[in-house]
Amino acid sequence: MPDKKQKEKQTQQKIDTKAGTLRIIPLGGLGEIGKNMTAYEFRAPNGQTDIIIVDCGFKFPEDEHLGVDYVIPDVQYLEEKKDKIRGMFITHAHEDHVGGLPYIIPKIPTPIFAPQLTAAMIERKLVEFKIEIGAGIRVINPDKDKIQLGSFNIEFFRINHSIPDSVGLAIRTPVGLTLHTGDFKFDYTPEDKRPADFAKLVNYGKEGVLALLSDSTGAEEPGYTLSEQEVEHSFFNIFEDAQGRIIVASFASLINRMQQVVNVAQRTGRKVAFVGRSMLNNVEIAVKYGYLKVPADAVINSNDLNKYPDNKVVIMCTGSQGEPNSALSRISRGEHKQVNLKRGDLVILSSSIIPGNERLIYGMIDDLYREGARVIREGARGPLQGSLHVSGHGGREELKLMMALTQPKFLVPIHGEIHHLAAHGDLAHEAGIPEENIFLLENGQVLELGLNSARLNGKIPVGVLLVDGLGVGDVQTIVLRDRQVMSTDGIFVAIVTVDKKTGKLLSSPDIISRGFIYMRESEKLVQNARMEIRKIVEKAAAKGAPDWNEVKNQMRDDLSKYLYKETQRKPMVVPVTIEL
Amino acid sequence: MPDKKQKEKQTQQKIDTKAGTLRIIPLGGLGEIGKNMTAYEFRAPNGQTDIIIVDCGFKFPEDEHLGVDYVIPDVQYLEEKKDKIRGMFITHAHEDHVGGLPYIIPKIPTPIFAPQLTAAMIERKLVEFKIEIGAGIRVINPDKDKIQLGSFNIEFFRINHSIPDSVGLAIRTPVGLTLHTGDFKFDYTPEDKRPADFAKLVNYGKEGVLALLSDSTGAEEPGYTLSEQEVEHSFFNIFEDAQGRIIVASFASLINRMQQVVNVAQRTGRKVAFVGRSMLNNVEIAVKYGYLKVPADAVINSNDLNKYPDNKVVIMCTGSQGEPNSALSRISRGEHKQVNLKRGDLVILSSSIIPGNERLIYGMIDDLYREGARVIREGARGPLQGSLHVSGHGGREELKLMMALTQPKFLVPIHGEIHHLAAHGDLAHEAGIPEENIFLLENGQVLELGLNSARLNGKIPVGVLLVDGLGVGDVQTIVLRDRQVMSTDGIFVAIVTVDKKTGKLLSSPDIISRGFIYMRESEKLVQNARMEIRKIVEKAAAKGAPDWNEVKNQMRDDLSKYLYKETQRKPMVVPVTIEL
Repeated sequence: MPDKKQKEKQTQQKIDTKAGTLRIIPLGGLGEIGKNMTAYEFRAPNGQTDIIIVDCGFKFPEDEHLGVDYVIPDVQYLEEKKDKIRGMFITHAHEDHVGGLPYIIPKIPTPIFAPQLTAAMIERKLVEFKIEIGAGIRVINPDKDKIQLGSFNIEFFRINHSIPDSVGLAIRTPVGLTLHTGDFKFDYTPEDKRPADFAKLVNYGKEGVLALLSDSTGAEEPGYTLSEQEVEHSFFNIFEDAQGRIIVASFASLINRMQQVVNVAQRTGRKVAFVGRSMLNNVEIAVKYGYLKVPADAVINSNDLNKYPDNKVVIMCTGSQGEPNSALSRISRGEHKQVNLKRGDLVILSSSIIPGNERLIYGMIDDLYREGARVIREGARGPLQGSLHVSGHGGREELKLMMALTQPKFLVPIHGEIHHLAAHGDLAHEAGIPEENIFLLENGQVLELGLNSARLNGKIPVGVLLVDGLGVGDVQTIVLRDRQVMSTDGIFVAIVTVDKKTGKLLSSPDIISRGFIYMRESEKLVQNARMEIRKIVEKAAAKGAPDWNEVKNQMRDDLSKYLYKETQRKPMVVPVTIEL
Repeated sequence: MPDKKQKEKQTQQKIDTKAGTLRIIPLGGLGEIGKNMTAYEFRAPNGQTDIIIVDCGFKFPEDEHLGVDYVIPDVQYLEEKKDKIRGMFITHAHEDHVGGLPYIIPKIPTPIFAPQLTAAMIERKLVEFKIEIGAGIRVINPDKDKIQLGSFNIEFFRINHSIPDSVGLAIRTPVGLTLHTGDFKFDYTPEDKRPADFAKLVNYGKEGVLALLSDSTGAEEPGYTLSEQEVEHSFFNIFEDAQGRIIVASFASLINRMQQVVNVAQRTGRKVAFVGRSMLNNVEIAVKYGYLKVPADAVINSNDLNKYPDNKVVIMCTGSQGEPNSALSRISRGEHKQVNLKRGDLVILSSSIIPGNERLIYGMIDDLYREGARVIREGARGPLQGSLHVSGHGGREELKLMMALTQPKFLVPIHGEIHHLAAHGDLAHEAGIPEENIFLLENGQVLELGLNSARLNGKIPVGVLLVDGLGVGDVQTIVLRDRQVMSTDGIFVAIVTVDKKTGKLLSSPDIISRGFIYMRESEKLVQNARMEIRKIVEKAAAKGAPDWNEVKNQMRDDLSKYLYKETQRKPMVVPVTIEL
């Protein structure tokens, strides 16, 4: 548990700094889903400091981030130590691990190390954003390469996830070996035919693992995550059975799912049309580097869909989360150029629901039904059974397996909300790791490792940067608070034009209101508000030389009270005085 | 499937109007979760018309209803036929079936018929809202009473749900017998010891059921809903095991859950403290009428909690959905007067997540963890197993059981989003009801029943009324659209004061902006915008006698473009001219 007393104790533990000190600082991804980023900072006894960074993700805005596009980690701490940063390592090409790059790489230019597919997807992204990749992207071979950067020696181990080329990192420093799993599960029959590298994990265990930083996303899921093979089985049954067109919606980065759809389409005599720019981009990259095997006759252009019988095609597109601009969402509203729904269409939502997206998804499903399509999705069992999606994250037994293989002295749950991290911590305790060796960190909290020892040591300030349109970090608390108020009760602007010398009103007060009430039907309210304002100004003018700030404050207070009494709403009241 | 072609066919079906026509008009609850309300309108061959209404709920606002408190059905159709309305029947006292009463009863005063507990809870609500109950609330005995109102004869049958005194209605008219289930499941060991009335249901089947309007909420859930008994078993295990305080959070209206907590607390030597006004109100009513059996020594006042050892108390409160003003939410933030969290507290969330509430709930859970509490909830399996909540709605097998018992000719799925209704329709088809006899209605769509016959016959206009503060229905599309724009990009008000005759500027343009950018850090942008405005006005003045509407339009267009170019945000731009 992320318990205060436990943390106090862990702060008082002693560490052995003889060989140096490794500071592990999560900059994002703890206490949240998304924007994963971790800094590893090694201070040698001679004072030399080296930093490497693992991952650089974004997350989607929370409810309170009105109007914000993305949230990325605040990397001020790293900017101040720019000259110590030796490189950045990316575990896989999902947005919660790479989405922050276009915003953050310009602030801390450093070489990026990643396997082939990840590197290619990053490069495409940075080019799209017109980011100079001065320091370069280095393609690593996860099976062979070891990278020496300052005091760090970094090696890679293959793990399974829902995108090929997912790796974990073995980070060696003079104080010992730290493992950073990235997102992972164990799949003995993965789509890309490359199971996790058990041999390496066992050898790390034999060598001695000082600390394991391990994915917590599935820490509340009992048992094991099903193999991706199961999805292919279900798809086969559904494809065989379907009389009309099939539309499979998933994430643009689920390369493995694309492979499954292509495989099953081939076996059932259907052609695949990929729809949507982001999906087509990823298909292109994955095919180019051999991560997606697509026979020449397997795929058709979405413009040619009507040239084939309905039972001979599959459409694969984005939109399984109901994202309003996604292909499937546009299809459901009848706004898509190439795909018009008709009776007999079968839509498969091949992803689980990301919490927060429920309303969008159910709204879209209802739109699909309205157009005559049928929808099947994981979790809602109609006549069709089977797994339409499997998670990319291991369940409780897999998390235990990771610990059993690598035998870490210290465990740091990463990737997850507090309840995920806490569940992972409890699991580790059950698996035999002593409570004082389980570190439930928050973003910014510093874990210090010495030889065979660890302790908490304070926090660095970490905030978030909000990306809104072209602005990165310029939308802050005040702006968000104003958006919040206006979103629920609107704004009420009261403008008075007065004579600078006498304080007398030069015209009737003007009132501008938006999002508060329908003005045309509220004449009396507006009239009374105007009278109220007039009274306040005239009273102030009668005394001579009014203090206009005081007058404005009174206008704000009195109008707020009056409007609340009449409507029980609290619009933002903005008084404006124009002195002529 | 709610398919267009199928609906066209059903419109063309012929009905036998010899004995009159029964028009069933859903005013809410179809294509949505909540605001359930159905009108039954019988037109006799002699022209006499009678209307009865079933239920009168509200729903919580959708994402687009910014700042709105509740959404209720628009009853204009009924207001126009006020003199035909004979009565309103309430199936049970949940908000999605009674929450609309305080707003709607004043518009269509009519007697309300309900069983004892439901009637008492409605009365309390109407008194709270200071609503005159001119036409009265009539307490019915579901086992005996038959109510004759015009051509309608209404009888009740007990069904199970998560609140006692839940009933369905058997509505007889000269064209036949219609059943309206309300929310239901079948529970052979319900908390209130009153199973559904199978005998009546079977007899209706023998008599011949023309139409069955049946709850669709669980139509995608395989199998049967577990008995409430299972929850009591799990609670017993958890209570026995827990070393510290236990906090159980659920809905204020889940009277059965309260009984379970009291029972298990008694068996494990704990006292129960109910916390929160709405929960205390309902406890009081349920105890008064004998629906909640609480021994004198079982309950303590929440002010006395500290007088008992931690392992001797249970706190029962609202807040399982993370509602910000609920007791549990305030407890999680350390803002509750009587309950301060501490290490060892165990929080049980005893409800399923209502879609849309995920972020609130997970945020609250993380706050609870931060304070040192542990949280267990249905669906996330930590070390503790078992059912912490069972649905109040039957699963697929129960829906089939209802059809098997009552043998309806026509089926109308009610209560649910389109995908629920469609799944229920598919199920009915599998169970042997012909497709043309399954009516998938939308709100406002009229189902006409004659002797042994049914057809669709058009739609009445049905909208929704939005309740916002004191206003009912005054917040409409324009106000919501303005709130939407301001919530994401803010507002930008440009004020120019001009000479009425010459059109010349009398002072520098004023700019008021909220929720757009942080103005203090955007001086250049504001300065440029001001220049832009000045240019537009001066150009217009130069030509003499400017058309100020035209000038304002130009200001709006040019400023919007300029601001978008600079920020890629689209604030609401409001130009104001003050002519002196």
